[in-house]
Amino acid sequence: MLSKSSKHNVLNFSGGVGGAKLALGLSRVLPSNQLSVVANTADDFDHFGLHISPDLDTLMYTLGEVNNRELGWGLDSETWNMLENLGQLGGETWFQLGDRDMATHLLRSQYLREGLLLSEATSKLCKRLGVTHEILPMTDHKVRTKVQTKKEMLEFQEYFVRQRCVPVITDIHFDGIEDALPQECFEKRLKDPDLSALIIGPSNPFVSVDPIISIPGIRSLMIDSDAPVIAVSPIIDGDAVKGPAAKMMRELNMSVSCSAIAEYYGDLLNGFVIDERDAQSAERIRNSGLKVLVTPTLMRTIDDRIRLATEILNFSLTIY
Amino acid sequence: MLSKSSKHNVLNFSGGVGGAKLALGLSRVLPSNQLSVVANTADDFDHFGLHISPDLDTLMYTLGEVNNRELGWGLDSETWNMLENLGQLGGETWFQLGDRDMATHLLRSQYLREGLLLSEATSKLCKRLGVTHEILPMTDHKVRTKVQTKKEMLEFQEYFVRQRCVPVITDIHFDGIEDALPQECFEKRLKDPDLSALIIGPSNPFVSVDPIISIPGIRSLMIDSDAPVIAVSPIIDGDAVKGPAAKMMRELNMSVSCSAIAEYYGDLLNGFVIDERDAQSAERIRNSGLKVLVTPTLMRTIDDRIRLATEILNFSLTIY
Repeated sequence: MLSKSSKHNVLNFSGGVGGAKLALGLSRVLPSNQLSVVANTADDFDHFGLHISPDLDTLMYTLGEVNNRELGWGLDSETWNMLENLGQLGGETWFQLGDRDMATHLLRSQYLREGLLLSEATSKLCKRLGVTHEILPMTDHKVRTKVQTKKEMLEFQEYFVRQRCVPVITDIHFDGIEDALPQECFEKRLKDPDLSALIIGPSNPFVSVDPIISIPGIRSLMIDSDAPVIAVSPIIDGDAVKGPAAKMMRELNMSVSCSAIAEYYGDLLNGFVIDERDAQSAERIRNSGLKVLVTPTLMRTIDDRIRLATEILNFSLTIY
Repeated sequence: MLSKSSKHNVLNFSGGVGGAKLALGLSRVLPSNQLSVVANTADDFDHFGLHISPDLDTLMYTLGEVNNRELGWGLDSETWNMLENLGQLGGETWFQLGDRDMATHLLRSQYLREGLLLSEATSKLCKRLGVTHEILPMTDHKVRTKVQTKKEMLEFQEYFVRQRCVPVITDIHFDGIEDALPQECFEKRLKDPDLSALIIGPSNPFVSVDPIISIPGIRSLMIDSDAPVIAVSPIIDGDAVKGPAAKMMRELNMSVSCSAIAEYYGDLLNGFVIDERDAQSAERIRNSGLKVLVTPTLMRTIDDRIRLATEILNFSLTIY
């Protein structure tokens, strides 16, 4: 059970699938006015003239409970007739655009053409999806992840989807990050003296969390905040649950372990959450000065998400 | 049977559904190198940032035999999941965007963004649809039909689809027509001394055929051409088969009859095709100097389309 002793004002940083699972758990135990989820938007991209925001979509669909549980991404009851015909007509089909999902991309793109900010477009979509918790793009400015591979520089979705993360990476850039301002509410929540916890979800540190942290000013606001900063390891038992985090760590000459993740975040963190299978690493991480929560972190069911969210919130009360 | 005595070089002007039926008939009796279909593009419009060309689409789908026979427009085996979700998200759903159909709009819009001409984009799409006869937009320039109603000026699709042709029209404009050049091949075919017939399909004269004829230079090229110009009446027995032609005629103070259509086209025509139910009008029209073909013009089946096309082509040989 979540401790009811104090009011929570929680900021949650999230990428796509894994992060969204924890965000859903948090949204089930915190009322709407006590949780804001900040989404990575550096893997947004333009495709067929549409503005596509994969992490925002995953968060909206997950918190709106219209997400596709079989696929792990996209919308429930999805069909693929547009994409099938697009292929027959000779169009590019490497990015999976579902028929229902298309409506989101069309509408968001229209809102942006009409002059709305990405955060305003997100807010309108969330309202229609019945999402009452705040989902904020990290910035309303354009930031785009570029992956430097041994062979060439790739746009993120080109690397991630089209080339299925096969190329070996040597570096990662966030184009436009120097000029990006944090989304207004995001900055306000982060500066709020009543902020009770900042929780970094079990997302990919390099391409999902780093963009958020790399927005000028965010790192120092995180360090200056009185709220404990807690990250959940995306690495369990030497591997990533999903996605290329482990592969990237090997290619960046890191050991693939939860300790390496804690080390990577470094002085940003006050607390770290690792899976019970990594219990043996707890002491080493504690020695670096972090509080550590050891608990089952793999979220298969909605009960897993709620339990983990509750434990992390209770853990946050033990820090400071 | 089509007379095999001479080579045909046929230009066919067409709007949407009715025109496309005759175009299909013509395409079944003329080889690819003997028929070019010129489509009205003044009812093209931008919707959700996509370039939509309703008449080009209807022609491509009809000649590609992937058209939806139940609906009379759009693609076969169509689904509507994008549109359903778009409605749930609060987007505008008055224009019926099918899931499969979306692929055409996405791809054409991408081609145009990449700098292709509308005719080039059409050609690429036709190739993928297996359409071997030439389908040409009347122009590669932007021409947009505006309907002046008693109350306000409406964009064509706003009038035609959103308001279901209910407002009373007082005038029709083709924005941009003064600066439009005929599509290059269209002009070439029309100037070709070997042109054997120009056939205006049973399309709406005011909003489907007039835009084509109103492109600067086209009217005089039609009059100067040695080829007979033949129109098929869209009015049968005092009513339009489909669409607002009859309603428009009443609102423009014309009698709703095939004779009024012949009169409207005036000196552009050499021959006119009317339905057998209008046989009593034949003499009056002949007295105005036109050759007249009286025949069943309602095209319910593919055999109807082929028979009518054949009769019109044979009729064209009797003129001059």
